[in-house]
Amino acid sequence: MTDSATLARALPSIAYAGNPLDRADAVRSDPARLAAVQAAPGARLLVLDGLAPEFGADGGLTWAPLATAGEGAELVFLGLDADGQGCFAAVDPALGGSTAPAAPNLRALLDAMPAQDLAIYGGARSLVDWHARHRFCARCGHATRGAKGGWQRSCTNPACGAEHFPRVDPVTIMLVEHEGRLLLGRQPRFPAGRYSALAGFVEPGETVEEAVAREVLEEAGVRVHSVRYVASQPWPYPSSLMIACHALTDEPIIAIDHNELEDARWFTRAEVAAALEGRPDAPFGAPTHTAVARHLLEWWMVARG
Amino acid sequence: MTDSATLARALPSIAYAGNPLDRADAVRSDPARLAAVQAAPGARLLVLDGLAPEFGADGGLTWAPLATAGEGAELVFLGLDADGQGCFAAVDPALGGSTAPAAPNLRALLDAMPAQDLAIYGGARSLVDWHARHRFCARCGHATRGAKGGWQRSCTNPACGAEHFPRVDPVTIMLVEHEGRLLLGRQPRFPAGRYSALAGFVEPGETVEEAVAREVLEEAGVRVHSVRYVASQPWPYPSSLMIACHALTDEPIIAIDHNELEDARWFTRAEVAAALEGRPDAPFGAPTHTAVARHLLEWWMVARG
Repeated sequence: MTDSATLARALPSIAYAGNPLDRADAVRSDPARLAAVQAAPGARLLVLDGLAPEFGADGGLTWAPLATAGEGAELVFLGLDADGQGCFAAVDPALGGSTAPAAPNLRALLDAMPAQDLAIYGGARSLVDWHARHRFCARCGHATRGAKGGWQRSCTNPACGAEHFPRVDPVTIMLVEHEGRLLLGRQPRFPAGRYSALAGFVEPGETVEEAVAREVLEEAGVRVHSVRYVASQPWPYPSSLMIACHALTDEPIIAIDHNELEDARWFTRAEVAAALEGRPDAPFGAPTHTAVARHLLEWWMVARG
Repeated sequence: MTDSATLARALPSIAYAGNPLDRADAVRSDPARLAAVQAAPGARLLVLDGLAPEFGADGGLTWAPLATAGEGAELVFLGLDADGQGCFAAVDPALGGSTAPAAPNLRALLDAMPAQDLAIYGGARSLVDWHARHRFCARCGHATRGAKGGWQRSCTNPACGAEHFPRVDPVTIMLVEHEGRLLLGRQPRFPAGRYSALAGFVEPGETVEEAVAREVLEEAGVRVHSVRYVASQPWPYPSSLMIACHALTDEPIIAIDHNELEDARWFTRAEVAAALEGRPDAPFGAPTHTAVARHLLEWWMVARG
């Protein structure tokens, strides 16, 4: 095992992490401060077309003066930039919300976006999408309205008054190792040839470690032990917290759940290296560099080398 | 640092973890299998009064034949027991749902519950409470109905058809260390004298490590580095995933956010030991043994000794 500081230097940073904005919780909760930030001439609006960004000439985000948001626009306060100026996004009233992954052509452009812009976009996308899908109170069915700079929605029914908060869904994603080989699977929706780490949502009533063990058993019939946390990533499709882990197994016989996976196989270290290098003779295609699954594979090559 | 296997032997297990039921995902998704499990004579119902359990003579849970649930009861499939019998809970139609912690007298009884029963109860409580608070579609405001054995709610409006899934909210909880001392805080709602680890929800667009750093800076004005994952715990009030971490700081000057904390202080190793032992001369009261904050303190005494 390599120590964690050495590892951090050896590995690329996590995509969608590293948002440079100050979330400024104290501004959100103070209507007067929020109004002042909003009224300042330097306040700016993230330009979105629904949930997609408008790409600038450098492949990054595009901003407009906040005044362009239009009267009565539902605004989300993303945070303060390095100059103390407020950054906002507007929720398109026509947006119905989507739980689908971004379209492949959009994903390719996002994969090339500068890291800090990608992190700002990811957080903004999750929030805007959450507003679009939570215009009504799940408790009583009445309309909700945004509050606290878009970090809350409140029920407008005085008899209910429920407060709702942006959702973050924890997902485990894991490398399972046996005698120096890794278990990877492919879902039918993957591009041809790609294999990746198994993954699944954490359910109420279980730990991260229990969720890892359950998912691997459900999807591949493999019992794991020694589950270890590696890294985490916010994933805005629509709003997951990816919790990346490593586990060991002593029972490498795979029994695939074909409702979940099209295939699952063991890959050697040399095969994983070939895939990460994108070599033409690689036996599988590695996940894209913005996916934490790729980070896990790169971690494994260094940490378990 | 002590290796993780040695640590696992030295530490008590995590409360609310270790649910012995098989979640049997394949049963949930197959209406015919679910109906057969439900119709079997051994199927049983967790006895609840609203969200509180009925305590048995041993301080554990109480079960009744599933037939006692009554016609048309909204059932949640908790899983299969060791004999393959289905275990269920019913959602009380009068239950409005609550985001409040359990009442103190209930918490004392739960703290004494056998571990496996506590884990079953925690998962069941989160699910039943989620159903009670999600009877309407957040997307369109129409009524929802339970699906997949209570692991989904579906909108009854054909023009919408949104599917909703039980919510799990990731929360970071962290020990911050400086020169062998720990930063602990107290919230106004804590029992007199108690101090515990700082904590806060993970927001959209941030990693676990970023959430830890943000929360400590917001609540105590302290900048941390070297954030490290320690353990996780499902916490059913109402449905959190506690992600317990350790971090270091080089700047130990505390600036308390009094909206969040009543006090925050540095405690020495001897002071933490006295609190964990419950000694009368301890300078603070430690969190109860079912809280992952206590597990973190016990971990620290062993791992960083």
